[in-house]
Amino acid sequence: MGSNAETRRSGCPISCSLDLLGDKWSLLIVRDMVMLRKHYFKEFLASAEGIATNILTDRLNRLEGSGIISKQPDPENRRQIVYTLTEKGVALIPVLVELMSWGKIYAGTTSVDRDKARRMQQDRRYKQRVIRELTEGCTSTPGRS
Amino acid sequence: MGSNAETRRSGCPISCSLDLLGDKWSLLIVRDMVMLRKHYFKEFLASAEGIATNILTDRLNRLEGSGIISKQPDPENRRQIVYTLTEKGVALIPVLVELMSWGKIYAGTTSVDRDKARRMQQDRRYKQRVIRELTEGCTSTPGRS
Repeated sequence: MGSNAETRRSGCPISCSLDLLGDKWSLLIVRDMVMLRKHYFKEFLASAEGIATNILTDRLNRLEGSGIISKQPDPENRRQIVYTLTEKGVALIPVLVELMSWGKIYAGTTSVDRDKARRMQQDRRYKQRVIRELTEGCTSTPGRS
Repeated sequence: MGSNAETRRSGCPISCSLDLLGDKWSLLIVRDMVMLRKHYFKEFLASAEGIATNILTDRLNRLEGSGIISKQPDPENRRQIVYTLTEKGVALIPVLVELMSWGKIYAGTTSVDRDKARRMQQDRRYKQRVIRELTEGCTSTPGRS
């Protein structure tokens, strides 16, 4: 499902967002770029969730098609493509932070302190700081960290 | 894809959230309950996006299976089922608000004032108030408004 008016299910902005992002993988690629500073196909492929090559290719094309990421030849190796977030992609950070916050409490992750997660869920200033720091990280010069 | 450890792709809380919510319809049903105060199968079916009956049945079962919604016989008509959000479902309101905020600016909705949407996107206190009001609306006695 694409991004233009013909393929929108309705004018509701939540529905329009899900037209672009409503699948199990797109936001994980954005997460990889925001939180793990990944920029290369091979890096996305190596993420813990084990995305298949064809799905990754499809999702990168869709994310580029909807203006969430852009791709350029890597300046250090022009046979390689480097993927970066656009302003539209960076603006998804608050969505990621809320999904992370909800997931820590409710989605059955075992690796976190749930009480601490609940305190963070309530703490808007903490979330705001996380969003600001991640945004700054994404809008500085891209590259492997 | 279910909610328990066997079907989780990784321990990442964003990935775990998307295991439950990563599709085009689940969060629209939650939106219907939060923002449009819908509680009945027929009401969800009538939403602008035109969900198919079999998909709606599947998503309601999954949302109930993962503890995001619960269902009871309608006290006013016991042959009818009424769906309500659980605490876990109500806790998704910040995710919806961020998807709405992002969609208003970036997902090609035409019906909104984009400058106003940008100001709201920056205004954490405004978002916090929206989240609080929606949460209060969802935790008061359910029913048609």
